[in-house]
Amino acid sequence: MKLLHNFIIDEHIKNALQEDIGFGDITTDYLVSKDEVITAKLNTRQDGILCGIDIAKRVFKILSGDVRFEKFFSDGDKIKKGDTLAVINGPARAILTGERTALNYIQRLSGIATETKKYQEAIGNCKARITDTRKTTPGFRMFEKYAVATGGARLHRFNLSDCVMIKDNHIQFAGSITNAVKKIRENLSHTHKIEVECDTIEQVKEAINAKADIIMLDNMNCDIMRNCVEIIDGKALTEASGNVTIENIGEIAKTGVDVISSSAIVAKAKTLDIALDM
Amino acid sequence: MKLLHNFIIDEHIKNALQEDIGFGDITTDYLVSKDEVITAKLNTRQDGILCGIDIAKRVFKILSGDVRFEKFFSDGDKIKKGDTLAVINGPARAILTGERTALNYIQRLSGIATETKKYQEAIGNCKARITDTRKTTPGFRMFEKYAVATGGARLHRFNLSDCVMIKDNHIQFAGSITNAVKKIRENLSHTHKIEVECDTIEQVKEAINAKADIIMLDNMNCDIMRNCVEIIDGKALTEASGNVTIENIGEIAKTGVDVISSSAIVAKAKTLDIALDM
Amino acid sequence: MKLLHNFIIDEHIKNALQEDIGFGDITTDYLVSKDEVITAKLNTRQDGILCGIDIAKRVFKILSGDVRFEKFFSDGDKIKKGDTLAVINGPARAILTGERTALNYIQRLSGIATETKKYQEAIGNCKARITDTRKTTPGFRMFEKYAVATGGARLHRFNLSDCVMIKDNHIQFAGSITNAVKKIRENLSHTHKIEVECDTIEQVKEAINAKADIIMLDNMNCDIMRNCVEIIDGKALTEASGNVTIENIGEIAKTGVDVISSSAIVAKAKTLDIALDM
Amino acid sequence: MKLLHNFIIDEHIKNALQEDIGFGDITTDYLVSKDEVITAKLNTRQDGILCGIDIAKRVFKILSGDVRFEKFFSDGDKIKKGDTLAVINGPARAILTGERTALNYIQRLSGIATETKKYQEAIGNCKARITDTRKTTPGFRMFEKYAVATGGARLHRFNLSDCVMIKDNHIQFAGSITNAVKKIRENLSHTHKIEVECDTIEQVKEAINAKADIIMLDNMNCDIMRNCVEIIDGKALTEASGNVTIENIGEIAKTGVDVISSSAIVAKAKTLDIALDM
Amino acid sequence: MKLLHNFIIDEHIKNALQEDIGFGDITTDYLVSKDEVITAKLNTRQDGILCGIDIAKRVFKILSGDVRFEKFFSDGDKIKKGDTLAVINGPARAILTGERTALNYIQRLSGIATETKKYQEAIGNCKARITDTRKTTPGFRMFEKYAVATGGARLHRFNLSDCVMIKDNHIQFAGSITNAVKKIRENLSHTHKIEVECDTIEQVKEAINAKADIIMLDNMNCDIMRNCVEIIDGKALTEASGNVTIENIGEIAKTGVDVISSSAIVAKAKTLDIALDM
Amino acid sequence: MKLLHNFIIDEHIKNALQEDIGFGDITTDYLVSKDEVITAKLNTRQDGILCGIDIAKRVFKILSGDVRFEKFFSDGDKIKKGDTLAVINGPARAILTGERTALNYIQRLSGIATETKKYQEAIGNCKARITDTRKTTPGFRMFEKYAVATGGARLHRFNLSDCVMIKDNHIQFAGSITNAVKKIRENLSHTHKIEVECDTIEQVKEAINAKADIIMLDNMNCDIMRNCVEIIDGKALTEASGNVTIENIGEIAKTGVDVISSSAIVAKAKTLDIALDM
Repeated sequence: MKLLHNFIIDEHIKNALQEDIGFGDITTDYLVSKDEVITAKLNTRQDGILCGIDIAKRVFKILSGDVRFEKFFSDGDKIKKGDTLAVINGPARAILTGERTALNYIQRLSGIATETKKYQEAIGNCKARITDTRKTTPGFRMFEKYAVATGGARLHRFNLSDCVMIKDNHIQFAGSITNAVKKIRENLSHTHKIEVECDTIEQVKEAINAKADIIMLDNMNCDIMRNCVEIIDGKALTEASGNVTIENIGEIAKTGVDVISSSAIVAKAKTLDIALDM
Repeated sequence: MKLLHNFIIDEHIKNALQEDIGFGDITTDYLVSKDEVITAKLNTRQDGILCGIDIAKRVFKILSGDVRFEKFFSDGDKIKKGDTLAVINGPARAILTGERTALNYIQRLSGIATETKKYQEAIGNCKARITDTRKTTPGFRMFEKYAVATGGARLHRFNLSDCVMIKDNHIQFAGSITNAVKKIRENLSHTHKIEVECDTIEQVKEAINAKADIIMLDNMNCDIMRNCVEIIDGKALTEASGNVTIENIGEIAKTGVDVISSSAIVAKAKTLDIALDM
Repeated sequence: MKLLHNFIIDEHIKNALQEDIGFGDITTDYLVSKDEVITAKLNTRQDGILCGIDIAKRVFKILSGDVRFEKFFSDGDKIKKGDTLAVINGPARAILTGERTALNYIQRLSGIATETKKYQEAIGNCKARITDTRKTTPGFRMFEKYAVATGGARLHRFNLSDCVMIKDNHIQFAGSITNAVKKIRENLSHTHKIEVECDTIEQVKEAINAKADIIMLDNMNCDIMRNCVEIIDGKALTEASGNVTIENIGEIAKTGVDVISSSAIVAKAKTLDIALDM
Repeated sequence: MKLLHNFIIDEHIKNALQEDIGFGDITTDYLVSKDEVITAKLNTRQDGILCGIDIAKRVFKILSGDVRFEKFFSDGDKIKKGDTLAVINGPARAILTGERTALNYIQRLSGIATETKKYQEAIGNCKARITDTRKTTPGFRMFEKYAVATGGARLHRFNLSDCVMIKDNHIQFAGSITNAVKKIRENLSHTHKIEVECDTIEQVKEAINAKADIIMLDNMNCDIMRNCVEIIDGKALTEASGNVTIENIGEIAKTGVDVISSSAIVAKAKTLDIALDM
Repeated sequence: MKLLHNFIIDEHIKNALQEDIGFGDITTDYLVSKDEVITAKLNTRQDGILCGIDIAKRVFKILSGDVRFEKFFSDGDKIKKGDTLAVINGPARAILTGERTALNYIQRLSGIATETKKYQEAIGNCKARITDTRKTTPGFRMFEKYAVATGGARLHRFNLSDCVMIKDNHIQFAGSITNAVKKIRENLSHTHKIEVECDTIEQVKEAINAKADIIMLDNMNCDIMRNCVEIIDGKALTEASGNVTIENIGEIAKTGVDVISSSAIVAKAKTLDIALDM
Repeated sequence: MKLLHNFIIDEHIKNALQEDIGFGDITTDYLVSKDEVITAKLNTRQDGILCGIDIAKRVFKILSGDVRFEKFFSDGDKIKKGDTLAVINGPARAILTGERTALNYIQRLSGIATETKKYQEAIGNCKARITDTRKTTPGFRMFEKYAVATGGARLHRFNLSDCVMIKDNHIQFAGSITNAVKKIRENLSHTHKIEVECDTIEQVKEAINAKADIIMLDNMNCDIMRNCVEIIDGKALTEASGNVTIENIGEIAKTGVDVISSSAIVAKAKTLDIALDM
């Protein structure tokens, strides 16, 4: 998710534009003639991390090949209230009709990148990295993952097929963590890892013995978590999970875990106030 | 948006499931046999307004026709922490694989409905109704509009084609509000309304004379807004807009406006904590 | 519908081309070599109103970026038998393979625009405007609406979501026009209008009292219609509907109605004879 | 085209329903409760040939699995003004929301089938059969071909890949009819036929010698056409084409041609007046 | 199938790229910066017939408009081990990410073209032509048909709608070959041929009398086949079918049949070893 | 890939059926009436491993809900020449029209599963497992991966996003294996593995030190490979790659590698001869 391919995002944007245009922009189409040209500035009214600037460009380009879009910041850059992010020049119809869709992408994605950065910065000098979850908006995951990565997070698995995650229910069906890991290992691609969700120190010990690649320390307090990290001692990667907040993430990081996962950076991020000024 | 058609949401859900399943749920597929059956409860861990219960049902049904889904609450119902919203029984594979996608819909939509309800309740006894905007997640508008309606809002226009909205830039191209409304009226379908965004009392007066159907009072303080409502005196519907918060919405409502629009109910709503307990 | 976005019509055209090309144009592919270039003229063999010239251009452009298409008339222009509408130059394969699809769009749409214009002209100096209905070809509405607008009509609602239309059956379910309008108004977006279909003067009076935005005078004779228009007296827009023909539309217009709706301008329009001469 | 597969038409219908429903049927959804049930009759107000009855059924079934649809006539049946074609019983919402889309299919297709039948009947006892062309509505050909077949026509080629049709321009590129047929024959699938468009007796003779499978007699008067049929003498199938009308088709048929092609049966057919009465 | 239209193959390629890229090329995206440029050579490591060179070009062009692709051979050309087929220059990311997908097309298609050529060459100087069948990979037929044509085969029918093929089961339902052909002929488009599958000399005679256009000699030994060809004597095209191998095709061809169909040229062809060397 | 979800394969099958049906099965539709019912047996004419039996079932079910399909073997079962795999009963039209598409899936997939099994069996008692590659048919990978798994292989990565694979070119851009792994590790999801392609013992040593998860031993002879396995000594998984054949795979396995990857099991597998006998 370091980059989004144009041929993929174009399809998403066209769908979003159809959603917003319906049978036509009945205001602009009647009031603005085909030949009118305007210049607009994409300005931010909040500090944050920029994400989605190239998507915004594609929105306008899809509406008209005559739009020129000069950007002054790139995704991942820190932006400050008042910064002009880009200057857009071209047919007024394309710019007015595309405005809302372009902003819907960039406001949401910058909001997520900004929130992610805050969590990562709250970790301070610890080695831990914030990571995301699969709690994403249906049909929008690729963009949200991209925003999280842009904000400085290490990504968690993309979907159900690129990493095993053994949870409570799976353990029950398998009989034990040991059985679960064994059964999976027999069949699993050698290219995929196995993560086990553990609630207790006992489970952690069993997971180590089963040679899990990653051990999730789920909903533990920091003392127990620290204890677990010591027990694991590098034999598996460690992931802290559950009720992570901007307030407690620094403390969690100090337990020595490798990654700290939180759905909040996506699910509770607010949009960043970026606007188009003509 | 009082209802979502199954034939439409099914396509959205299938896309979301493909996004999450990729090449297969490599944990569940290897650990849970085809014939295992489980019962799960959909429980809420927060108070709020339920939205998306039937979508959750469709998620599981699409994965397996053998899933039974008995719901105890319907969309729009108030739910309290601890309530069991539904009981789901069927093939363990379908329930475990579909869990995240089902929750992704219901958590987001219930979060939006809950936020909307708070804003509407903060209006109190005033006639005003909260309404939404076009600031939605690309590709997810129909669902977000549905959640807003479920939360008690009156919906704003769906997209650019079902209501005219004359903004600053449009006025500049037309020369004046009067010209803009006149030019539109000559061509516009008789079935569509014209809304004019006004920043000043002078603009409001011009909009009244131009016979705008709806006048948006944009970023005005409450005193000026009240003044405008009096001047309009029922000759057009009035919409307050700009920097609406849960704190100030009650005061805005007291100015006598008909609707108060806010992107916050969608863009800043947090997910509601609903979980599947096996 | 003053304009069609290329990114939208391109998808429709690609689908139409696939429908017509199947596994290949087995005549042209074998007889015409890749390097052959031809010039063709798009000529009209009938008088009418042109519609679809830019769609025709896109058809050829999609088949080959090397096609040049110079047009001499634009959509909405009056064209006369013998007029050359455009000159097309480029790879013979693209022009021969695309011919039928390009003509299928332009012949149908120009036929509709031409028919619409006739109805509008038959109205003469009255203020009334011809308008269309939802009786369109499945999957082709956006194009047919565009042709109707090009022919000079004022468009009716695009679909079921942009204007309320209360018909007989709805009135029965609600109990009365009064109840129906009231029930709708409580929930309806403030941006949408309410139209009520009325068969009798009594219904018209009830609709006025209920503050319907538009009153449809359905299948009334001209005397009753004139009477209704007087009663309504500008309190609502008036729409004449039912058995509108080119012969009687002038008389209907004289009753003073605002719009006259007819499915005939789409459903019974004949294709205009436009051809490609090499 | 003797039958349409449900899995194919369902996709077309879903697209048409989305086109008509947009963000929801805002009239029905607010006025009719989920549990209301109605019975509606599909009646014809004109004589004609029925086509599309099963498509209409699918429209309602897609909206609600609870709709029951009992038909009394099948596609291809003669129907008379006043006949009840089907009785539909089920959720009022599904029936009211689906009405227009169902009628849009059945009215158009029955109109085409009816027009086709008239042309076939005007041929009388001659062996000739009316046949269609590729002048169809973009995206709707499969349905229009089905309607033409239902009306009693013999179908022409479906698209550019199932039969060779050598026209003027192809002949020019190949040098002569003889060369064109020869060049095609070397490469063409043995399963495909070759048709040659001829304007003169000389061309007809050349086409016979080249062993064309089908010879189109294009825009000839009946005397010349009769002459050509005699010259061809069964060595190729004969197709009359150009300016075929309901008035002259009987005379054309008497020339002895095998098929008479006309775009009018699709492009100029009017919709048949079929309605849903509740 | 002499050519593939870009607007059609682009959709197929985009789907294939999405299949292979998923959430991103996590190796290349992290290791290769956006501005790195490389030059790669497309080399063949086996002798064969080239097929798919322009598809490979489109793969890279879809990933980046900045890729230049200079080809030295065209589809249908004989290529020898060591030949450089094309030189590709452009963004390293696009070339590394697209490599596998481009090769997946060109290796398969060249493999099929190569296998087809071998069968055709094994026929020697006889008039017979190898032809393919409908045994293709689901979703990939257009490409496989194109490869077969590129390899020198005459194509069989594309699908079930462009030629009638009466098989055993159809004969049983119709009662006899005579009845089957008659029943079809009454309804069939005059532009389509009828092929009858025959197992015995008696069936062949019946098919001749019924005026079948093509007679398939199914699973006959060469003596009987030769006998059948003599009996048919040019009154129908003849197709040999069943257990065709590279060893026996020459002998089959000597029976005088017009075409010899074999699924092996597609279903059993091996990929040709073509590689991208940086 | 232990299972394929119906909602996913249904879309693929519908596309394949449309590809094969085009405008209709013009043989069956005219010869077989709607009410004819038949029973067919799905028989194998070769020994092998069955794969795709449930896909075949879906093909017929999509054409008609009235088809009953009773299977006697499941995917992964060994089947012997003459075995009846399933009995299919239902509308003759659905069975005849769907036959080819059903067989196209099951013949290809069983062919791949059978080939895979042969390679796995040739490994004998060694711990090594055969694994596949990304050399698959564009648009068909999910099915081919499923067949490979059914045949007993351990799957390799699904696509470019679920495992890092550092190849020659990547190493050049990064400067060294050490740099490449380091640079990736900084950004990579903790849930993904890193594989390094090594040609020499020196590279293997560097990869071990860089802590690669998987080391590919590319195109090495067995002696060097054995040497490398000893050096690696369990510190990474080992994958043999390059010119793997059924003849040499046993010897390769004896070197002690964990997996042996080969594109041959997909790209060079022949279809298994399975037929439908009525």
